[in-house]
Formats: sequence, C-alpha cells, structure tokens
Amino acid sequence: MSTIAASEALSSSASPALDALVTHLQEASLLASSNSLLDWDQETTMPAGGLEWRARQQALLARIVHERVSSLERRDLIEAVESDATAMADGSVAALVREARRDHEKATKLPTSLVEEMAKTSSMAKHEWALAREKSDFRRFAPWLEKLAGLLRAQADCYGFAEGGERWDALADLYEPGCTARSVSAVFDPLRPRLQRLVADLTASGVRPPSGFNDFAVAIPEQEALSRFVAERIGFDFNRGRLDRSTHPFCSGTHCNDVRLTTRYNERCVNDALGSTMHEAGHGIYEQGLPFARVGTPIGESVSLGIHESQSRMWENQVGRSRAFWAWLHRELPRIIGADSARFSLDELYGAANVVEPGFIRVESDEATYNLHIMVRFEIERAVIGGSLEVAGIPSAWNRLYKEYLGLEVPDDRRGCLQDIHWSMGAMGYFPTYTLGNLYASQFFEAACAEIPGLVEGFARGEFAPLKAWLNSNIHAHGRRFTPSELVERVTGKPLSAEPLMRHLEGKLRPLYGM
Amino acid sequence: MSTIAASEALSSSASPALDALVTHLQEASLLASSNSLLDWDQETTMPAGGLEWRARQQALLARIVHERVSSLERRDLIEAVESDATAMADGSVAALVREARRDHEKATKLPTSLVEEMAKTSSMAKHEWALAREKSDFRRFAPWLEKLAGLLRAQADCYGFAEGGERWDALADLYEPGCTARSVSAVFDPLRPRLQRLVADLTASGVRPPSGFNDFAVAIPEQEALSRFVAERIGFDFNRGRLDRSTHPFCSGTHCNDVRLTTRYNERCVNDALGSTMHEAGHGIYEQGLPFARVGTPIGESVSLGIHESQSRMWENQVGRSRAFWAWLHRELPRIIGADSARFSLDELYGAANVVEPGFIRVESDEATYNLHIMVRFEIERAVIGGSLEVAGIPSAWNRLYKEYLGLEVPDDRRGCLQDIHWSMGAMGYFPTYTLGNLYASQFFEAACAEIPGLVEGFARGEFAPLKAWLNSNIHAHGRRFTPSELVERVTGKPLSAEPLMRHLEGKLRPLYGM
Repeated sequence: MSTIAASEALSSSASPALDALVTHLQEASLLASSNSLLDWDQETTMPAGGLEWRARQQALLARIVHERVSSLERRDLIEAVESDATAMADGSVAALVREARRDHEKATKLPTSLVEEMAKTSSMAKHEWALAREKSDFRRFAPWLEKLAGLLRAQADCYGFAEGGERWDALADLYEPGCTARSVSAVFDPLRPRLQRLVADLTASGVRPPSGFNDFAVAIPEQEALSRFVAERIGFDFNRGRLDRSTHPFCSGTHCNDVRLTTRYNERCVNDALGSTMHEAGHGIYEQGLPFARVGTPIGESVSLGIHESQSRMWENQVGRSRAFWAWLHRELPRIIGADSARFSLDELYGAANVVEPGFIRVESDEATYNLHIMVRFEIERAVIGGSLEVAGIPSAWNRLYKEYLGLEVPDDRRGCLQDIHWSMGAMGYFPTYTLGNLYASQFFEAACAEIPGLVEGFARGEFAPLKAWLNSNIHAHGRRFTPSELVERVTGKPLSAEPLMRHLEGKLRPLYGM
Repeated sequence: MSTIAASEALSSSASPALDALVTHLQEASLLASSNSLLDWDQETTMPAGGLEWRARQQALLARIVHERVSSLERRDLIEAVESDATAMADGSVAALVREARRDHEKATKLPTSLVEEMAKTSSMAKHEWALAREKSDFRRFAPWLEKLAGLLRAQADCYGFAEGGERWDALADLYEPGCTARSVSAVFDPLRPRLQRLVADLTASGVRPPSGFNDFAVAIPEQEALSRFVAERIGFDFNRGRLDRSTHPFCSGTHCNDVRLTTRYNERCVNDALGSTMHEAGHGIYEQGLPFARVGTPIGESVSLGIHESQSRMWENQVGRSRAFWAWLHRELPRIIGADSARFSLDELYGAANVVEPGFIRVESDEATYNLHIMVRFEIERAVIGGSLEVAGIPSAWNRLYKEYLGLEVPDDRRGCLQDIHWSMGAMGYFPTYTLGNLYASQFFEAACAEIPGLVEGFARGEFAPLKAWLNSNIHAHGRRFTPSELVERVTGKPLSAEPLMRHLEGKLRPLYGM
C-alpha cells in the first residue's frame, strides 16, 4: 500500500515511525470511507431489496475499522511517534498524534460487538424511519428507536463522563469535543428568552416582509439548475463532488476529492431547495477545503460538527439571506428559473428569504426560530438518554415543548418527532451542534468582515471567492490541528459568545420588521 | 456477525464446521461485494476528482479479500468440513467445499502484492482507457495496457497451466474453468469459415431485410422508458435492481437482491439500447435468480462467464430477435416511444433486428458476424500474453484481422482496438466466453423449446415467465454446484456443440435473405 509520504503530508523531516502511523491511519480511513459510500448509496440509489445485505456489509466494515483503530498495533505506532522528539517538534505532527490517541482511546472503550450492532441496527432503523415518517406512524419506528437508545446508553457507559456530568455528555463529546449537557444548558437557557422575545416582537410588529416569492412555483429541473448554479458560484467544485436528491438533505462522500451533497425540491417554494443546497454546499466547501496531502489522518479531517455547521450556516444565512446576495441573484434568476421571476423586486426576494414565522419543520424554519427547534430536541434526547423519558413518551413531550417554546400545536408525528433522520442513525448528542454552529458562524463572519474590506458588498457582484479563500486558510486547512475552542479564539481573538448571533439577528430582522 | 444458518442455506443437518466455513466465506463476500459497489459507482457516478482515493480503496479491499480467501484459517475450515462425512454426504455441501477449495487454491498462488497492484492499476487504467477512447488515442492507453499485460503474465505464471498449454490458459481458467487456447481454437477454427460463408451468402443474396427502423430517431427519455418496460416484462425485478447509464453497458451489483444494469442510448437507433438492455437484463435475471439463502457462498454464485453470457445472449438473440417477440413489441411500441413508430410493420421491425452487415463495433454487431469479432480479440490477447505480439503492435494486428475476418478497413482506434473496456480492467482470457455463451445459449434454448410446448408462441403474447422459470430452476438455482460442462450435459443431455448455433443462425437468416 503506497501512502502519502509523511514529509509531503506534514512538512516534517522524514520519520519512519510517523510514516508507519500514517499508513495505519490511512488504511482505516480507506475502509471507513468505503463504508461512507455504501451509506450514501443506500440513501440515494440502492434498490429496496438490497437492505439486508447492505446492513451486513456496513456492520462488517464498521467492525474492521473499529478493530484497527482500537488495536494494540495502533497504540504502539502512536507511542513510537510520541517518543520521536524530532517528529513531535512539528506542531502538525503533535496534533496528528494527539487526535490519533483520542480516537484510539475512544475506540478501545467500545466492544466490537457493540459497534457492529449499532451499525447494523441503524442501517435498518434508517429505512424503517423513512417508512414511518411517510405514514406518520411513530409506533412503527418506536421499537427501533428503543433499541438504538439502549445501544446508545450502553455506548455512553463505555465511554464514561466527568463527575457531576451525565450520560448524554459522553455521546455529545463524540461530535463536539468537550461539550456537556450542562455547558449546553448554560448557553441555551439565557439564549431561549432572548430569541423568544425577538420572535414575539417581530410577530407583534404588525409588519410582515413581502413573502410572495415563497409561493412562487418553479419546476424541479429549473430548481436543480439553480441549485447547481449557486452551489458552483459560491465555490463548490463539481469536479470533486456531486449534487443529488434524498429524503433529507445531507453532505457525505468519501474524502475531499469526492464530496456528495443532496438536497430536496418543493415545487411550490424554490427557496427551500436553495437554502438546503447552500447549507449542504457550505458543508461541502469545508470538506473540499481539507488538505488532500493529509487525507486519512486527523489533521486532514474536520474539527467538530459544530465547526462544520458553522460553515453550512454561514453560507446559508450570513451569505444566502443577505441583501447583497439577493442583489446579485435578482439579476441572475430570470435566466435560470424563467422570465416570470423578474416580477419580484429585490425587496421582495430579500423579504421572502427573511420571513420569521414559527413552524413545525426544523429544516424549513427561519433563523430566529431555528434554535428553538434545537432546544426541543436537546431536552428530549437528554431525557431519553438520562432515562427520565421513555421512547413511547417522545411524541407527547415533543408536542408539549413545541407549544411552550414556539407556541405551536403539532398536528402529527410526520411534522413532529419523525421529521429528522438523526435519531434513526443512532445520533444523539448531535442536535445542539447545530446551534453551536450558528453561534460560531456569526462570530467567524464578524471576523471575516473585519479582515476583508468590502466583503459583503462583493456578494452583490457575485464575488464569493474572498470569503471562501478566508475560510480555506483560516479554518479548513488546519483539519483537526486545533480544538473547536482553540480555533474560535485563534480566528476571532475571543472565546465563543452569543453576542454576534444576537447582533446578526437583531441587526437584520428588526429593521425589516419596521423597528 | 450473524450468518445464514447452514441448515437453511444447504438443507443439511447442522454442522458447526460448515457454519464456520459459511461465515468465513460470507464475510469475504461482504467485502468483495462492497468493492463491487465502489466499482459500479466509479463507472456511473463518481466525480472525476475521486479517482486516486478510489483506486486505493479498491486495492485495499481487494487485498483484504485476497488475504482472507488465501488464509490458513480458510484452508483449515475447508478441511474441517471435508472430514465431516455427514455434512459431505449432501451434494450441495460437497460442491460448496469443492469450489471453496478451488478459489482458495487459486488465491494462494497469487502474492498479495500482485493482487493489490492489479486492482490499483486497473482502476486507473479504466479511467485512462475512457479518455483514450474518446480521443481515439491508443498511445495514451498503451503504457497502461503494457503494465497490465506484464501483471497478467506474472499472474499466469503464478497460476501455472497444463503441459502442452500456454500462459493464456491460466487466465481463461479464471473465467471458464477448464478453458484453454487449444480448446478454443478447436471450436473457433472450424466455426470461422462456416460463419464467413453464411455472411458471404447473405451479402451475395442481393436481398436486404427492411432496416428503416434502425434509423428511427427516438428521444432518450422514451428509450429509457422502453428499456425499463422490456427489462421488467422479461423478468428483471426493479425492487432488487436498477438500470442506469454508462459508457459501456454492464451488469454489476453486490448480490442477488441488488443487481445493477447499465445501458447506453443512441438517439438515432432505438434498437441499440434495446439490444444492450435485454442483454444486460439477461445477466441480471441470472444474478437475481441465484438463491439468496446461499448468498456469499460458491453455490450462491454464477457458474462461469460463458454460462453467464448464455443467459444474456438468449434474451438478446433467441428472444429479442425472434419474430414472436416483435409481434408482441409491435403492439406495445406506439404507446411507449410514440405513435410515429406505428408506421413500421412487423416485418420491418423483425427485419431491422436481423440485418447482417459486417461493422467495426462488436457490441453493435449482428448475430452472424459477432463471433468473428471475438475471434479477432482472441488471437490478439493470446499473442500478447504469449509474448509474440507487443502492445504497440495491437492496432495494426487488430486492423489486419478485421480485414481478413470481416473484410473491413478499420478507420481509427476508437472504432478499433480501443472500443472495449475489458483489457483496461485487466481481463484477458475473457472474450472467448462470449462465443461460448452463444453456443451454450443456442443449445439451452433448443432444450427449453423441446420441454415447454408453445414457448416461442407465448413471446407473441408477451409471456416470458415460462422461459425465466425454466432458466431459474434448470440453471440459476444451482449456483456453482455443477461445472459448465456438467451443467450443459445435465440440462441438454449432450456435450457442447456448435450445431444448435448454426441451426439457429441458418434457420433464421437464410429465409430472411430469401434463401
């Protein structure tokens, strides 16, 4: 197996120990990324009959990867580099070894049988979730979620958590290193009333931005053309990626040179697909920005889900809901989705992208209410994993919280607790990273604006390359070299704060609502 | 890893040794079939940038599968079943063990490094072939073919061949157990003049069947609809399979419940896609007919490429070029490809499907000239592997043989020696199985007609299920239980002969050409 030479990958002096570790890391990554392709294929392409064998393929690959990551051989290779002082003097090498050790230690805590059981169960559960959602039948999905929750609790107990913490922390740490239920509550509890107040004020203003464009019907082929056009213009490289359709939009793929976005189309609202596509393209631009020379090693991987989400949110919200972006797209739209669209003024397009209205569906929600949707999910998964809420009680807990946080009566589970794919994939402790992503995005974007004169004005001319280049060099190029909090401090000069998000929302939405 | 219980898979009494072997076989098959999906994805879906990582993924998976198949553990498991007399009393078990041993012994003869080098080289070479073919630039592809030929010679030397044989035999045996260059020549040498005479007689007859339908332009979406309709009606199950597009049509997938066909569309000739689709659907119906209860074991796998090809050819030729088939499709066509098509009479449709005319492209050729195309490829690959022909000399050798066998001057390498994907995949010793397939198909079909009264007449009513059921139970259900020659004898009561093929061709074509 040839590998990328450590010298090329890491600009370090040659180290046989490092080369051996990199080879070992890359081989596991080759197998894990093959499994990612099986996953992508199942979501987009696989015939229904293939499910049983696919579940077994995925379980076996997950088991082999887990065996390799947790192996004594891996530990010995890590220790050999740790004891090579010359190699470790390079900050990239030290980071690679630190993260390789973190991954190894996480993996050794899980028995192989549990990893395999989880892979197999979630492969089947995803399929059952899609059917249950279609029929709005939570009871069909409940046994699968019950089984997954049991496996997740067992996982959490294997990983363990800090004193004074709780089981949920052990799961969240997989997605956002250092994240705990307590730290999330510390951000969410004060943020919730500020967001609720903002939403209440906007609703009470009596003003509503023009939203006619959200009812503008556009045929799917034209929406596809628009999605591809915008994704490409903001910087997603179609020579190293694809855009397909799936039930729930996602960004997947195998590595930086094969990144796969999906989106979904609603014939009656072109803004749905546009927002989803820009969101997923933001994830994709991050993945494509990871250094190929370091592929398959931790410093060629993304930092955390929260940081990942900051990239998708920035393109979706800070860019895609800005007046400058719409000033550009306003000129391009008639050519792509038809001359009819020329009847909308810039004010109407900008307004339609920024209507605030509490709704049932997270992925269709506006920037102001979005984080309230996350808070519901956080409360529920924390309680399920902690054992204070039965799976059977999820629909009523969900509906009660939607009433309390968003003032809504949820009509059915399809528009309620069955709307998201995440739990069916065995991902709990994941949802809060979306709100962390919104917080990071606002703080990063303020820093980018301060460093790049005329950044936002450039959007109005269709110029997005300066932002992409800034993200490439400040965030993407580092892989996992820095932890999420180190990265935030390094890029913005400050620890994470909710102020940039509130400044962004208040500064944009209050004027739009005549305040 | 749960496995299908041996008792279920093999109707044998419980045997722990057999269960252990089945688990070991199935795990290798899970990984090999994952690699098949990577391959399918590369041919149909993968962005160009993904090539380098994909080659490394495939090489690693191929290496792991090879390590498992050739392992001492596998040998021990085989021997444990061999010494279990009760288990071996079941004919299916005995066949499973015999074939597992054959695969193990083949695999132990190849060093891991060679397997991996071949997987990696062919992954890159396929890509280069596609570019070279597009530009009709053999020199671009030559270094890759040179490298592949070297690896193939090394492979052949590892496998070895019988005394008095040659290197090519060792490769052919992989595809068609027992096949040698001498045995192929013994069939091809007398067959060639009979085919050349038939073609010459048809050409000299002065008669030409009406071929206007071959110039009937049909838009791609309608051709796709027709391809799907016919594939489904002849018995391909879309709940357990797909139909996509690729440069060169193929049948791939991961196992009997996920079978993937591809075809290609020529806007100016609907018969191209129809023929390709029926051909690939024939392969697919064989794959879907393999018993899922035995998946991942040799008795859940196809016998040989020649037998596989007999299935595709039978649906393409014995069915798809029959007057009865066209009597049915004639009624269906206007609804699917447009009312314009109603202007063609049944005679015109049947004639167009059976025009004999020497041409450059194998996959577009008619039944009478097809085997002459194969004979050219056989001569060339035999000489390249034997060392009497340099890779650089392939274009001139190719063009000389086309002149001699088919009377044609090949205008460029795109329509000459670059037309087929096979060599770029490292597949030499493979082409003759196409002609063996034609021979088997004719002989099987004569047997089916003798056993099922009114079989062909049923085609005229769109009834294809009797033929599919006959193939399912006589051929597909057995997996590799019987060798190709055993299967032919068992199903038809006679050893393989060229007479049924010549009867089929002469009996159909001479009357069509007024003789």
